[in-house]
Amino acid sequence: MAGIRVTIWNEHRHEQTDAKVQAVYPDGIHAPIAKYLSDLGHEVHVSTLDDDDCGLTPEVLDNTDVLIWWGHTAHNLVMDDIVDRIQARVLAGMGFIALHSSHESKPFMRLMGTSCGLLWRDIGEKEKLWVTNPYHPISKGIDAVIELDHEEMYGECFDVPNPDDVVFTSWFEGGNVFRSGCTWHRGRGKIFYFRPGHEAYPTYYNKEILHVIANAVEWAKFDGNTEAAGIGKAANMPFLLAPVEKNE
Amino acid sequence: MAGIRVTIWNEHRHEQTDAKVQAVYPDGIHAPIAKYLSDLGHEVHVSTLDDDDCGLTPEVLDNTDVLIWWGHTAHNLVMDDIVDRIQARVLAGMGFIALHSSHESKPFMRLMGTSCGLLWRDIGEKEKLWVTNPYHPISKGIDAVIELDHEEMYGECFDVPNPDDVVFTSWFEGGNVFRSGCTWHRGRGKIFYFRPGHEAYPTYYNKEILHVIANAVEWAKFDGNTEAAGIGKAANMPFLLAPVEKNE
Amino acid sequence: MAGIRVTIWNEHRHEQTDAKVQAVYPDGIHAPIAKYLSDLGHEVHVSTLDDDDCGLTPEVLDNTDVLIWWGHTAHNLVMDDIVDRIQARVLAGMGFIALHSSHESKPFMRLMGTSCGLLWRDIGEKEKLWVTNPYHPISKGIDAVIELDHEEMYGECFDVPNPDDVVFTSWFEGGNVFRSGCTWHRGRGKIFYFRPGHEAYPTYYNKEILHVIANAVEWAKFDGNTEAAGIGKAANMPFLLAPVEKNE
Amino acid sequence: MAGIRVTIWNEHRHEQTDAKVQAVYPDGIHAPIAKYLSDLGHEVHVSTLDDDDCGLTPEVLDNTDVLIWWGHTAHNLVMDDIVDRIQARVLAGMGFIALHSSHESKPFMRLMGTSCGLLWRDIGEKEKLWVTNPYHPISKGIDAVIELDHEEMYGECFDVPNPDDVVFTSWFEGGNVFRSGCTWHRGRGKIFYFRPGHEAYPTYYNKEILHVIANAVEWAKFDGNTEAAGIGKAANMPFLLAPVEKNE
Repeated sequence: MAGIRVTIWNEHRHEQTDAKVQAVYPDGIHAPIAKYLSDLGHEVHVSTLDDDDCGLTPEVLDNTDVLIWWGHTAHNLVMDDIVDRIQARVLAGMGFIALHSSHESKPFMRLMGTSCGLLWRDIGEKEKLWVTNPYHPISKGIDAVIELDHEEMYGECFDVPNPDDVVFTSWFEGGNVFRSGCTWHRGRGKIFYFRPGHEAYPTYYNKEILHVIANAVEWAKFDGNTEAAGIGKAANMPFLLAPVEKNE
Repeated sequence: MAGIRVTIWNEHRHEQTDAKVQAVYPDGIHAPIAKYLSDLGHEVHVSTLDDDDCGLTPEVLDNTDVLIWWGHTAHNLVMDDIVDRIQARVLAGMGFIALHSSHESKPFMRLMGTSCGLLWRDIGEKEKLWVTNPYHPISKGIDAVIELDHEEMYGECFDVPNPDDVVFTSWFEGGNVFRSGCTWHRGRGKIFYFRPGHEAYPTYYNKEILHVIANAVEWAKFDGNTEAAGIGKAANMPFLLAPVEKNE
Repeated sequence: MAGIRVTIWNEHRHEQTDAKVQAVYPDGIHAPIAKYLSDLGHEVHVSTLDDDDCGLTPEVLDNTDVLIWWGHTAHNLVMDDIVDRIQARVLAGMGFIALHSSHESKPFMRLMGTSCGLLWRDIGEKEKLWVTNPYHPISKGIDAVIELDHEEMYGECFDVPNPDDVVFTSWFEGGNVFRSGCTWHRGRGKIFYFRPGHEAYPTYYNKEILHVIANAVEWAKFDGNTEAAGIGKAANMPFLLAPVEKNE
Repeated sequence: MAGIRVTIWNEHRHEQTDAKVQAVYPDGIHAPIAKYLSDLGHEVHVSTLDDDDCGLTPEVLDNTDVLIWWGHTAHNLVMDDIVDRIQARVLAGMGFIALHSSHESKPFMRLMGTSCGLLWRDIGEKEKLWVTNPYHPISKGIDAVIELDHEEMYGECFDVPNPDDVVFTSWFEGGNVFRSGCTWHRGRGKIFYFRPGHEAYPTYYNKEILHVIANAVEWAKFDGNTEAAGIGKAANMPFLLAPVEKNE
């Protein structure tokens, strides 16, 4: 497979302000993901909140097949016109992968239409992610269950539209469950939410977690129909296909 | 069944400016719907764009079980904070029924997250709505097919998230098809989109069309769980249910 | 609501052969369910494997709105023509509720088309059932989570078609998760699978579990369209609706 | 892409008994499909009803990635143990593509669990297949609508479980609509139903129809997870993963 053009967007705040996070991700939480995907041959670009236009100019987005998103404390600093731009690109076919606390990011919430609320508890408990849709390419090459010794808990009820597929469902030591790997389609674009990845734990160095993200990148790249009308941000189109003239 | 509190929101523009529409709906396009639902024993309230706050104050919405929406030329005059209010109420359990050109209304687009684009052609052609999900209560008491002699055409590809159910699928004389009766859930709320109802045709006097709308009102009223956490516009909640104390 | 005609089918084997089960369910595992539903005003009929025709004659089925099923050790003793009869009635609108080990019953497997396989472990561990679809009427009046101190574990991957709704998702003390309350539609019929209810534990005396079953009975009763063609076991129909005569 | 191992199963009856069909498909209705897929580099094998074991021995199926099925008048001559074998292979990951009148073939009905009934009319009317899920790889490279001048009509209500995706929806000159390109997952296997292809019309020489079938072959090839437990025809498995010993 030829390289996929991936843009990783990272808020990049905790890594600059929190020594504990810095110790885990000295080059940014995006760094191990970027390295893994680059090593696979993908063309990886990194953008952050501090870049002009959040690093998401029309040119960057037009050259992105799949956008990966990690945000947490600064969701509201992403301007609405950037969110408009992202939504339009997803509807036109760009893949979008929302990681962990990005469940409350503006682009993800825009695409879902819901509060994306959930329960949470950060005591570093054990998580097990079970494969619940084994036919799905995002689960390819993964064992029946991925175990993470320490993670933040996210628990149901997760306020999202019913996913098309629930590729992973999580068990947490403290008594909760969560739909951790969910897919949706919006317009021509494919969306994947993947739960793991609190900033304080070395989750993005885990080879299985990285493998899931790489699978998701391959799956999320547009591979559909460019002709069907009515899709995207475009206005409606009159369409005179019929030999019908009845109005007057 | 006790009366359901229904608010019908009508943009109410065409009826004031277009003689042809005035002739069809002299008391407003909402009038035959309001009469039909009232006659069934529901508590019907009408709000329009010209009312203060679009007639959708927090008090009105708090006392609405199901909101019916008809808009067309003035979608953008509905202020965003009204849309926020509607979305929050839907996520908390209010039903929402979008009629015809309301596919591009702000509240519907907000809840869908897509462009809601489609093809259209207004030459008054014949439409047939086939029941495609006969188990669904919205199709109860309806024949296998509803025929409308003259309607505007809406055609696929309809850019909405895959519906939970496609209760009706339309055939148009001019060669198009359309998913005309679609359901979704968002948060605790139920959503129904129902295609027919161009302002220039007497569609809302058709007894079968009115019957479908009445079925949809009954279906859309909240009848679920008020306890599940994580739903609605509320912020996340810490949740210490577990005997787990590992973080320090 | 008027009483619903419910038939509870119980294999009724463990209660006759296993002293431990006899102690928990002296009158049969169906007894507490039958009592609860009768007390609500439903017309409850009980059939078992030892009855002629499994107690599921055409007359019994024709007078059943919702069929509840509990089977475990004797799935294969249910004759195929009884299964044909049940399937035909479900497609025509009878509700079907499969409890616990009925995931491998013949009627459930027939309706699913899959192996219905799953993981299991019977050490009496704790189970928590989380509400994951709060809009669903089956979850009405239930807390955010139902706790059962001792149950058999069923774990993913559960080999069923993707459910329409996953009303409950279970957490098990031993590390597994499970989609414990699942809905599907087949033809005009509604199907609910509900996981809890191993014969060795007093699960069917639990008021919340009984409440869920009662909700499911109300939901599963047919409330749809009787006119749509093409549904059921009936053969195809020629259908000359059109003014089209092109074949010669 | 390396060649996919495709088995085309054709009932092969009409071509031997009906001069009109013989004129259209002198080498069998499978021939143009086999040629098209072979030319693309796939390894195509043809089996028919007259072969021993229907040409579907365990060895043939074990070496099949995707099974294409065309049947009509002789559905009941396919023995049930062959159907068992096909179902088991689909649940284990083999793709299955059912063409046209195969909606009532035994393997398809087994996998669906429904009557698969529909309306039909054979007067050679015009059909238009609209792309309704443009993100789907099966629609790749196809125009917004495929037109067929003469086909048999199949009409809703089509008694199948709600599809995961409705890639194509058909319009018929005579007034009907149909979900003509539908996908489902069962176990690890992917299923596609594609409506066109009555034996009396030259549909399988149409380049767009062949292109859709080729897309479906690529999509239906297994590309998922081989580790997830609980899937397939296998019995349940005890699974002692937990540090929990509570039963005694």
